[in-house]
Amino acid sequence: MGTARVVFDRWDGRYAARMTGVRSSAVRDLFAAASRPDVISLSGGMPDVRRVPAEAVLRATREVLEHQGATALQYGASEGRLQLRETIVGLMGESGVRLRVDDLIVTAGAQQGLDLLAKVFLDPGDTVICEGPTYVGALQAFSAYQPRIVHVPLDERGMDTDALEELLASVGPRGAKFIYTIPNFQNPAGVTMCPERRRRLIELAHEYDIPIVEDDPYGRLRFEGGHILPLRALDPDVIHLGTFSKIFAPGMRLGWMAAPRPILAKVLLAKQAADLCGSAFTQAVAEVYFTGTGWRRVLADLTGAYGERRDAMLSALDEHFPPEVTWTHPEGGFFVWVTLPSYLDTKSLLAEAVELGVTFVPGADFASDGSFRNCLRLAFCYEQPEQIVEGIRRIAEVIDDKLELYRAFAAAGAVPAGTRP
Amino acid sequence: MGTARVVFDRWDGRYAARMTGVRSSAVRDLFAAASRPDVISLSGGMPDVRRVPAEAVLRATREVLEHQGATALQYGASEGRLQLRETIVGLMGESGVRLRVDDLIVTAGAQQGLDLLAKVFLDPGDTVICEGPTYVGALQAFSAYQPRIVHVPLDERGMDTDALEELLASVGPRGAKFIYTIPNFQNPAGVTMCPERRRRLIELAHEYDIPIVEDDPYGRLRFEGGHILPLRALDPDVIHLGTFSKIFAPGMRLGWMAAPRPILAKVLLAKQAADLCGSAFTQAVAEVYFTGTGWRRVLADLTGAYGERRDAMLSALDEHFPPEVTWTHPEGGFFVWVTLPSYLDTKSLLAEAVELGVTFVPGADFASDGSFRNCLRLAFCYEQPEQIVEGIRRIAEVIDDKLELYRAFAAAGAVPAGTRP
Repeated sequence: MGTARVVFDRWDGRYAARMTGVRSSAVRDLFAAASRPDVISLSGGMPDVRRVPAEAVLRATREVLEHQGATALQYGASEGRLQLRETIVGLMGESGVRLRVDDLIVTAGAQQGLDLLAKVFLDPGDTVICEGPTYVGALQAFSAYQPRIVHVPLDERGMDTDALEELLASVGPRGAKFIYTIPNFQNPAGVTMCPERRRRLIELAHEYDIPIVEDDPYGRLRFEGGHILPLRALDPDVIHLGTFSKIFAPGMRLGWMAAPRPILAKVLLAKQAADLCGSAFTQAVAEVYFTGTGWRRVLADLTGAYGERRDAMLSALDEHFPPEVTWTHPEGGFFVWVTLPSYLDTKSLLAEAVELGVTFVPGADFASDGSFRNCLRLAFCYEQPEQIVEGIRRIAEVIDDKLELYRAFAAAGAVPAGTRP
Repeated sequence: MGTARVVFDRWDGRYAARMTGVRSSAVRDLFAAASRPDVISLSGGMPDVRRVPAEAVLRATREVLEHQGATALQYGASEGRLQLRETIVGLMGESGVRLRVDDLIVTAGAQQGLDLLAKVFLDPGDTVICEGPTYVGALQAFSAYQPRIVHVPLDERGMDTDALEELLASVGPRGAKFIYTIPNFQNPAGVTMCPERRRRLIELAHEYDIPIVEDDPYGRLRFEGGHILPLRALDPDVIHLGTFSKIFAPGMRLGWMAAPRPILAKVLLAKQAADLCGSAFTQAVAEVYFTGTGWRRVLADLTGAYGERRDAMLSALDEHFPPEVTWTHPEGGFFVWVTLPSYLDTKSLLAEAVELGVTFVPGADFASDGSFRNCLRLAFCYEQPEQIVEGIRRIAEVIDDKLELYRAFAAAGAVPAGTRP
């Protein structure tokens, strides 16, 4: 099912104004192509759930149904089950964040947290500050509430806080509803915000009285370097989004939001309106799964595998990509961000890549303003190392072809299709 | 956690305008009181999941994890898993609605369907037509998008289509974004729309070119009378919401929306922004649970139990409630709607009822305009017949006390607290 197939809509003109800003995610649109068995997927940020032992999930489910069936099958509290919130308090404590159970609610993945925050904070025309590039799902969630989205550039040390300071000076105190950041192994850029910039970001947020929204899906998937304290550990006013999708399974649709209690009370009302409550069944299964130590071994195994895949990807990039191309060096997470010469358009490269049996996500998806058309995101989380190497080889082929074509045309004083002067 | 405890909110004035219209549901606020073991709950619409065999759910989960673990633990399609959509097509077929899998999407309960429809259709100030009284969760979902909500009265044959016609004449063609109805065993009124009015509603909707939203959570829980075709069976333009909460378990958070495909495409975009996709895990478990015939025996058992409880409630009402009080006669579903003399305020009765160890929901929660203050909703779905009888006896005691007090005061030419002249 896709909007593309809709020829005539007799309800056209009757939808809410907000729907004009909501576009489909190229990442999700690619799911169909990416799930063809012959295609190497370097596009989707899908964790390798094949490494999560089905037996452990079944054991957890059995315990839930034997001892807690009556509550696990019933409607539950909107804020989430108490025991799962206690589990989350424990997990966050290991990351250096001290919380009480009443400082957080359970959400349907971190994505629902983004939607609820936008619903609670954004009137049409309000400003939201995001990194550039940023998570496409955040752009989707925010866009439905018609904000003005402004991007702050990133480099290898994360969000450029000098650029942020300039931007804040121009919008003024309370001039944006919030600042959205993914400090660890950023999606899509793969970069991590250094401790100095974290502290500076918090100073600036207080100076301009603008809440920070910290989205941290990948924080526990580090395979190089030492742990850096989350923003929420440095400042209790930070709104923090977490998820079980990367440390357990996305199929459970479980995440959380920690926030100052007055904000959390508003978010809870918005959640009740959105779905009454989350799944008590998956919450209860997660509670049991995170008892004991088995999940730690699974997570260590996953992180080790992601590290090997990143290594395979970085080596293959070194070997196959031409010198005009640069890329980031992620210390964890799922993604490498690739920058091609400015005259190449990765959207037009994608069709050729899919023909060669490999997918990536074009960079323009990760900004609200059409930037990053010469960039692309590579995911190393899903495929085996050999597939990753082969995928990179195929993408390199597409890029080489295009560069050669460009050089030939340029020598003749013209510009080939799919490139820009 | 509750807004009541929040003393000072330094973010006050920074929330979106829509949040001023979003209030907490009294039904949900009562969950805490209602879950005290000594309190008889005639408030919450909680299905009796103790009758859903844990063993059947465990068997389904085992089959899922053994054969489909890799997809059940992963992100899934936003529109829902194909096999579950096929199951829904089968279920709807049994109710007389012919659908294809592409005519529907899976939602997080029917509540998410309400939220997504409001998100897709409502600009601030748009008119929405609802029954009066209507489902409190719909009022919550819609209110977040700042519509003007207009109520059409109900009687024992459902929505009063003459009153609707008058209303439509005043708002004019396309003068409302949609007409929301719960035709079967309405929440909270317990009444069912007769076939003649269903046909008339559809005629009027076409005449004024306004979509109908049909919410049908209870349609399969009929214990008296014959099946009546859903509105969607009579008109493919009707948007239909269904749920697994009452035929399986609310803890799965699974529902569905069938709608014309252009509308569904918009709703799907809104769903992606809201939570990316539903839980593949609970969807897969439901797929297996609805294979075979075991679920039919469970549903027949549930429906039989609800029928007995309704009988117990109606007999107890006959026996204990004073002649000034009237109530509806539901042929299925969960609820009886009670109308007290106009000078009684059920919100003030509730506190006294809770002291006596019984809960109900005051009528004013079921309208956007403060109507129905002398009404209340009774749920017979959750407690055993003996508890129901005892609960009704206690509520009768509260009402009798108040009526006696009122008569005494009235004789003295005054009005007691908690009543209106």
